[in-house]
Amino acid sequence: MSAIKVYGSMLSPAVMRVMACLNEKELKFQFVEVNMGAGEHKKEPFISLNPFGLVPAFEDGDLKLFESRAITRYIANQYEEKGTNLVINGKGKQMASFVLCMEVEAHQFDPPASKLAFELVIKAYLGMTTDETVVEESKVQFAKVLDVYEARLSESKYLAGDEFTLVDLHHFPNLHYLMSSPIKKMFESRPHFLAWCTAILARPSSVKVLEMQKAN
Amino acid sequence: MSAIKVYGSMLSPAVMRVMACLNEKELKFQFVEVNMGAGEHKKEPFISLNPFGLVPAFEDGDLKLFESRAITRYIANQYEEKGTNLVINGKGKQMASFVLCMEVEAHQFDPPASKLAFELVIKAYLGMTTDETVVEESKVQFAKVLDVYEARLSESKYLAGDEFTLVDLHHFPNLHYLMSSPIKKMFESRPHFLAWCTAILARPSSVKVLEMQKAN
Repeated sequence: MSAIKVYGSMLSPAVMRVMACLNEKELKFQFVEVNMGAGEHKKEPFISLNPFGLVPAFEDGDLKLFESRAITRYIANQYEEKGTNLVINGKGKQMASFVLCMEVEAHQFDPPASKLAFELVIKAYLGMTTDETVVEESKVQFAKVLDVYEARLSESKYLAGDEFTLVDLHHFPNLHYLMSSPIKKMFESRPHFLAWCTAILARPSSVKVLEMQKAN
Repeated sequence: MSAIKVYGSMLSPAVMRVMACLNEKELKFQFVEVNMGAGEHKKEPFISLNPFGLVPAFEDGDLKLFESRAITRYIANQYEEKGTNLVINGKGKQMASFVLCMEVEAHQFDPPASKLAFELVIKAYLGMTTDETVVEESKVQFAKVLDVYEARLSESKYLAGDEFTLVDLHHFPNLHYLMSSPIKKMFESRPHFLAWCTAILARPSSVKVLEMQKAN
């Protein structure tokens, strides 16, 4: 049994983000299903792992964590010497670019992308009805974000420079879901964005997460 | 003239966060007012500094940045040897605690805290009407967050351990605004939270931001 455990649902973008990071670091882990339909994430024993009642929760031996981007940052720092290097530390412009893109993903990209992925893809899995007003509002907001990304990605292959980092990895779950939705057209009209998205989805770490989802 | 410039409005919590960080690092900077009432943050030349049209924007020589938490992280890394040490790098539980609390501030604390500060304090400055529905919903959400913080702060003086870090600093602007609102009562009923809040607001870096606000 692995010392590393990931608790959640494999459909959750936040859970997928953590699993992709573990794959990049070539770390074995145990996945523990939380039945969110039955509200298990809002009750004990789960809320002892995350008092906010959100997936994923994470354990590495006796260390407990939650918040997907905290977990990935922990993994990238703690297992620095394993697998792909995912962080840019130190000083100077590359570090600045890395910390900037981390915040842009969390505060500008994720809000409309998550809403669109939920409304257009995840709700269909769950048999719920899409809210078209949310979709239309989110599309307007998302188009502006995509224009900024297109300009940035015309200057470097990945967001923080020419190497793949945690910044790019954090986008993987929403990119995957949105590529199976009508939002794909918004990507296709932006060639640098599309090339970047294709490169992220083709990584073995991403492919492995999707295979685990199917097998689950 | 300083090489470091902060662009924005001094009433903005995100701008205050960056100024407090520069004060902790004992760095001089030039403040450049952006007339948000006139929509200057949505036009050139500002959108060349931040394509998302949000304050603050930041310059350090020829390096340009935006997103307040990216700017503070840059400052803390770039000027590591100056003023207060604000980050916990390396490996192990302290680093894990630091990265966790950074994400909890951004994703759990900030959303209800910002809404309450805007509805109850900033709208009054601007002569706008408070939306009581938003206030009531945010209070319910915020009470749960405060309970988690109270438990955490009963175990250590600051969020990531016994030393003040960037995690604590990021809370300063919302704590300041909410202490001048009826939300103060929610703090007063949680003694560890109140002691932590008082310690943050008493720091010279915080006091100096508020003095600059008054003088502006």
